[in-house]
Amino acid sequence: MPTEVVTLRGHIIDSMSLPRVLDEIVDFGATYQVIELSLGKKHDDESIARLEITTDDKVDLDRLLDRLQQHGANAGSVEDAAIAEADVAGAFPPGFYSSTNLETEVRVHGKWLTVDRPEMDCGIVVSGDGARTIPMGEVEKGMSIVMAGLGVRVIPLTSPTDAAGRKAFEFMSSDVSSEKPKALLVDQVAGMMREVKEAGKRILWVAGPAVVHTGAGPDVCALIRAGYVDAFFAGNGVAAHDIESNMFGTSLGVHLDRGSAAEHGHEHHIRAINEVRRCGSFEAAIDAGVITGGIVRHLVDHGADYVFGGSVRDDGPLPDVVTDMLEVQKQVRALIWGKGDDDLIGFCIVVGTMLHGIATGNCLPASVPLVCVDINQATVTKLMDRGSWQSTGIITDVGLFIRGLAERLGPNEVRRASEEADVRRAGSQTRT
Amino acid sequence: MPTEVVTLRGHIIDSMSLPRVLDEIVDFGATYQVIELSLGKKHDDESIARLEITTDDKVDLDRLLDRLQQHGANAGSVEDAAIAEADVAGAFPPGFYSSTNLETEVRVHGKWLTVDRPEMDCGIVVSGDGARTIPMGEVEKGMSIVMAGLGVRVIPLTSPTDAAGRKAFEFMSSDVSSEKPKALLVDQVAGMMREVKEAGKRILWVAGPAVVHTGAGPDVCALIRAGYVDAFFAGNGVAAHDIESNMFGTSLGVHLDRGSAAEHGHEHHIRAINEVRRCGSFEAAIDAGVITGGIVRHLVDHGADYVFGGSVRDDGPLPDVVTDMLEVQKQVRALIWGKGDDDLIGFCIVVGTMLHGIATGNCLPASVPLVCVDINQATVTKLMDRGSWQSTGIITDVGLFIRGLAERLGPNEVRRASEEADVRRAGSQTRT
Amino acid sequence: MPTEVVTLRGHIIDSMSLPRVLDEIVDFGATYQVIELSLGKKHDDESIARLEITTDDKVDLDRLLDRLQQHGANAGSVEDAAIAEADVAGAFPPGFYSSTNLETEVRVHGKWLTVDRPEMDCGIVVSGDGARTIPMGEVEKGMSIVMAGLGVRVIPLTSPTDAAGRKAFEFMSSDVSSEKPKALLVDQVAGMMREVKEAGKRILWVAGPAVVHTGAGPDVCALIRAGYVDAFFAGNGVAAHDIESNMFGTSLGVHLDRGSAAEHGHEHHIRAINEVRRCGSFEAAIDAGVITGGIVRHLVDHGADYVFGGSVRDDGPLPDVVTDMLEVQKQVRALIWGKGDDDLIGFCIVVGTMLHGIATGNCLPASVPLVCVDINQATVTKLMDRGSWQSTGIITDVGLFIRGLAERLGPNEVRRASEEADVRRAGSQTRT
Amino acid sequence: MPTEVVTLRGHIIDSMSLPRVLDEIVDFGATYQVIELSLGKKHDDESIARLEITTDDKVDLDRLLDRLQQHGANAGSVEDAAIAEADVAGAFPPGFYSSTNLETEVRVHGKWLTVDRPEMDCGIVVSGDGARTIPMGEVEKGMSIVMAGLGVRVIPLTSPTDAAGRKAFEFMSSDVSSEKPKALLVDQVAGMMREVKEAGKRILWVAGPAVVHTGAGPDVCALIRAGYVDAFFAGNGVAAHDIESNMFGTSLGVHLDRGSAAEHGHEHHIRAINEVRRCGSFEAAIDAGVITGGIVRHLVDHGADYVFGGSVRDDGPLPDVVTDMLEVQKQVRALIWGKGDDDLIGFCIVVGTMLHGIATGNCLPASVPLVCVDINQATVTKLMDRGSWQSTGIITDVGLFIRGLAERLGPNEVRRASEEADVRRAGSQTRT
Repeated sequence: MPTEVVTLRGHIIDSMSLPRVLDEIVDFGATYQVIELSLGKKHDDESIARLEITTDDKVDLDRLLDRLQQHGANAGSVEDAAIAEADVAGAFPPGFYSSTNLETEVRVHGKWLTVDRPEMDCGIVVSGDGARTIPMGEVEKGMSIVMAGLGVRVIPLTSPTDAAGRKAFEFMSSDVSSEKPKALLVDQVAGMMREVKEAGKRILWVAGPAVVHTGAGPDVCALIRAGYVDAFFAGNGVAAHDIESNMFGTSLGVHLDRGSAAEHGHEHHIRAINEVRRCGSFEAAIDAGVITGGIVRHLVDHGADYVFGGSVRDDGPLPDVVTDMLEVQKQVRALIWGKGDDDLIGFCIVVGTMLHGIATGNCLPASVPLVCVDINQATVTKLMDRGSWQSTGIITDVGLFIRGLAERLGPNEVRRASEEADVRRAGSQTRT
Repeated sequence: MPTEVVTLRGHIIDSMSLPRVLDEIVDFGATYQVIELSLGKKHDDESIARLEITTDDKVDLDRLLDRLQQHGANAGSVEDAAIAEADVAGAFPPGFYSSTNLETEVRVHGKWLTVDRPEMDCGIVVSGDGARTIPMGEVEKGMSIVMAGLGVRVIPLTSPTDAAGRKAFEFMSSDVSSEKPKALLVDQVAGMMREVKEAGKRILWVAGPAVVHTGAGPDVCALIRAGYVDAFFAGNGVAAHDIESNMFGTSLGVHLDRGSAAEHGHEHHIRAINEVRRCGSFEAAIDAGVITGGIVRHLVDHGADYVFGGSVRDDGPLPDVVTDMLEVQKQVRALIWGKGDDDLIGFCIVVGTMLHGIATGNCLPASVPLVCVDINQATVTKLMDRGSWQSTGIITDVGLFIRGLAERLGPNEVRRASEEADVRRAGSQTRT
Repeated sequence: MPTEVVTLRGHIIDSMSLPRVLDEIVDFGATYQVIELSLGKKHDDESIARLEITTDDKVDLDRLLDRLQQHGANAGSVEDAAIAEADVAGAFPPGFYSSTNLETEVRVHGKWLTVDRPEMDCGIVVSGDGARTIPMGEVEKGMSIVMAGLGVRVIPLTSPTDAAGRKAFEFMSSDVSSEKPKALLVDQVAGMMREVKEAGKRILWVAGPAVVHTGAGPDVCALIRAGYVDAFFAGNGVAAHDIESNMFGTSLGVHLDRGSAAEHGHEHHIRAINEVRRCGSFEAAIDAGVITGGIVRHLVDHGADYVFGGSVRDDGPLPDVVTDMLEVQKQVRALIWGKGDDDLIGFCIVVGTMLHGIATGNCLPASVPLVCVDINQATVTKLMDRGSWQSTGIITDVGLFIRGLAERLGPNEVRRASEEADVRRAGSQTRT
Repeated sequence: MPTEVVTLRGHIIDSMSLPRVLDEIVDFGATYQVIELSLGKKHDDESIARLEITTDDKVDLDRLLDRLQQHGANAGSVEDAAIAEADVAGAFPPGFYSSTNLETEVRVHGKWLTVDRPEMDCGIVVSGDGARTIPMGEVEKGMSIVMAGLGVRVIPLTSPTDAAGRKAFEFMSSDVSSEKPKALLVDQVAGMMREVKEAGKRILWVAGPAVVHTGAGPDVCALIRAGYVDAFFAGNGVAAHDIESNMFGTSLGVHLDRGSAAEHGHEHHIRAINEVRRCGSFEAAIDAGVITGGIVRHLVDHGADYVFGGSVRDDGPLPDVVTDMLEVQKQVRALIWGKGDDDLIGFCIVVGTMLHGIATGNCLPASVPLVCVDINQATVTKLMDRGSWQSTGIITDVGLFIRGLAERLGPNEVRRASEEADVRRAGSQTRT
């Protein structure tokens, strides 16, 4: 009967990969022997499991090996990856290898090539000495596409300590619940951000309009000034309400310094959008003195990278909003991977958005820690379904959470924002 | 002191417009006399209120009249609308009139013109003898844009009986709560759909992927066959999972007839998208035998109008998905207003989607009844913030709700779907 | 045809009582004339409406007057209240007047008596020169119970400024939404608490276990020390987890200073309960050095009034927990009304609990401002269904919200708590 | 160095007990060898793991063995359980063994005794030849209480097929999500109920007021008539609104057959409670013709066991409601364990209640399958935190779900209910 030895390495208990592999085998109806099981004596030690698997026939064995490979259990016998030529543009050949967001290698001419830019639900294209993921829509006729089979292997995540110090990550991989010590979670995320910056890595923020509505706009500005926002991805609504708050002191028509509705307030965002469109771009509106502060202004002034992606519900949209979805995805990938060879972001925080959060998660390699913050459990749960232990959900108030981060990471900047608000308030009272 | 009489007509108590007007006046610090207050003796009778308003100076009076007009309280003194020429393309002149979704009239050369296609957050363009709303992005240089002021008036909604029989609407305008008699709500929505169809009007469905995940795909198909789906707006996900369920019997990798996860199931949707992309279009995929059933197939076969709008989180997307957001909005307006002069949809149902629901609500005139169904209270509340009493939120399970609609509106079609499922299940068991 | 004039006074637009009254009349099929409608020129002015109502027969008129009276529209013709003798203990005579939580008067021997302790869903008992509400279960045979009819009248709430300065209440009566400026809401609730204390009134806290789980226990202690907790109502769980956190540093087994699960942590609460039961009471456990800090300890040390009420889900329960529900309700009423004649609490804050929040709301007169804070919109909505504008819902993180209150109201106390935590943490690290 | 072999048996992969054990050991800093690892070849086969564990000293080893035992990993070396005499009534001696809800054995005089009535968070008392769990509050001075240590062992759950056929349980152990095929879940729960009844076991329902508010009262009655409700646990609210719906056709004042609010409807429940209190008991109210139908009437008429437990928020309460919490818990245990020796319920369904659901879960042995149904994800998640794979959460609409169960399990009974409703509606229309 056909037999094969698979090897599983890394953080295989914590990451649940060993149990999943055993479960798959049993589920499949195959039999197996444990040849080696050496687990690390400490949490961060690497563990190894080697299992000999037997099935009734060779076809079954290949099918099973393909399944196990998804969990990082790689077969001992090796063969080159099957390669097929793309026969149409914009689609893969049937039977293509569908990628995960884990580190992946593909065997070509007897050598294992590391696949560049691991990302879920893509294909892999081989060209020259290299291999990289490619989204379906970018396939060109004639490209060499990797097919599913033994010539691909996946490397399970190793210990989280690789990315940053253990302590900062202690709260990760825990259950999502609103009943956690909250000030502590703020401390831990702040600590993680500090370490990521100290390691010279970039931080990507993905934000929804709740950031502005909950009054956290000035806190995001404080964090930009303090250097904790390198890249920023959001939709038209975030920019529109941010600019509204700068022009009118309101968000969705609600006075941010009083909490009450403004006269004609529901028109504010549309008038704000109109004014910026009249200028033609964020930069032009800043130059014209139309945008005098707020998140957008800070992003531009501090040279942060940003993408504002459109959606079907947008008013306007604002001039810098990208309305074609494929172009948005391209630009998000650029935010993630940066400009140089080793410029991958070190940390991603998603606040108050499901749509843009999932969009980012889709493109993110599993090695980047991801924290999702939302007041709605369903949103956090959906985002967490990516399932890697490097992602964490925090159910809390976005406004108070960001305020807490700003107080910890940029206390001087927060003080400055608060003084400016007092001045603004005084001004607005003389106006009203 | 400057004085003006405003008149308020229609369903002014139920719709809260009178209380809101009084509140605005008091808030503003103006004084007033009730000159006439005649309320209908029955719920459906028209009511009239006439108030004489006095302020300290003329500027204040104009500002207040402008505010009151938003609630349908129109000033007695009339003047022509101020018109400004659009000085740049893609934006309004400052001070433009920002439209509501209520029936609106604009006074030009002493005559009140009815504004075509009332829609929120647009401007109004006058050309020839007509006036119509125009989205900011479609403004061309030189167009005649209506400015805010007394030359515009808004007609409050009259009784809901105008649209369809009172009974069907009885449940409307009630609070959003998950603790309502649910089978009754299904009855009432089914009754409303029946009346709308009997009145020769079209029904627009706006759907999220939960429709497929909760197993309601075959029920939507039954409703298409029974003639209750004239227009359909959704995202890439709905089509992708619908086609996945047709090809693999799964949705997001979960067997719809067993509830358990399929082998390699998480790849199913991407493989489904790939196959359809290889064909080039839904129609081509149907002709090629790649799509043999499901919602997409039904929409094509029954000649329903449909729009699938892209989003930043899409995989693929499928070939018929529109990836430019401005184009999607144009097509949604076409779904709503139809092909002829009097082809406006008679009813809109939003199921399991916030994004596409809000997008639709943005374009919908207030006269079209709207029902939003979602299991998440936050989603329903956000959608309901449009605030007109013609919209209703129902917090319930999308899957069981649509099943209930299908059983009431197309019992024979449901039976047929169930028999087909048995056959399919039998077939899939012999395969597995 | 029978006719009657009803008068409506107070804050009748904002509180929606006028629109509701008009709606009831129209609904009922009666006709009416507006005899007088004088609305305040400013928000805080009293308004008056007088309506002449006509129905087909006298029975209908009485029924309608009874309905209108619930909204504070009192009839001009007066008659003594009908009184019936309680014929069984523990229940009212059929046709009894069911009370609201608004100020109420009952006419006996030609004089209007103010009903003591207004509370919802009770009856009214008359004895000697007085009248007071009485819960169904406390009725004794032979008591004089007030029947529904014209002899009872309800006084609508007057302006909120009566209770405390307008500013503090500005955020009230607004919609419940998670998308509000949050730091501002913290400011406003803190401001309100400060004013209530300055006015010499007491503050009642009603709390759920999330207060402890989210790490806000030390902040509640800081607020007790700062004098902002006069009365406290909670369940067994709050006390159990508070004592657990004092004994073990965990809440539900999770280390509050690290966020990770403790060894055998799920047993901590049961062991904490056991230890206190071994002592016999909170005070004995404090004397024995078993409870050295935390909320319970602070309540006892600072002489706050407290009630811990049992529920069917309790472990233990702790010795001071009242397990009979009727006794709990009696004690909650005592917390609310205090010890003297004019000792009614001035403010009630409900944090992280639906069960105890509703229990309190049931007993609370409408004149007491109530703020409910929870992360779950459904909880807040249910609590807000009491419907008076003096109650406000805030959807936010309980832990971060209370932290914010403590920082604003007792900064020195917060600093002290934080220093103590550092010492404790240092100690626990040497132990572990 | 001290060494011990622990054995783990049963469903050790699926139930996650092996990974948890390995994780605990590594966490603890101990070392180990896998001596035997034989996993079942099919899902339902028993698996065995034997691990040799080594720690630095004996105290650590005992501590670790105690931890592992909680996951069902029992030490090879055996010793009698330590027994301590209860020194005070109503509390355990410090160091007592805190029980789980899994099958448990305790070693006394060299023999392993099975602990009767496994239940979480209790102690174990030994008397004569037997051992049983005992709640803290029932401890009497002098009882022999089992202490934590090696003399106790826990038997992990074996395959779910032991309880009923595999198929019915297929959907269990899956993630909680609102996006599941819903009609299928109804089918599966109905199938499970049918099997449980065929096996001669009892079904326990735990219900919240949403059952009545959502209009599912008649469906619960149909299920009682069809024989699917043997025991019933709820609060005062369920009975009050059920009787209200019987007396007035409303639930919380909302007409169940129209969905609109009734005149004076908010008083209905208090008047219903008053009428039943005037009778003195449910049975007396039935005899007096006060309760002519509904859930309470059905429970009494069909001889079902029921407990209505009070809470701090109750109006009234109704005469049969138990107001002392310790007495309620006693009665719930009696519902669970039944009257004879082998009368343990075979299935428990919790619908629309967190409070009573958790109360029941606290007393339930892990061997009883538990399904929780609620529209609110937070409720389901909290209930599921019991964590055994025999419990399943379903996020759906309680009203439509129960309607679906009734249609599948008692179609004739549903038809009868619907005909009765038509008659009632006709009658109520002639009345109005």
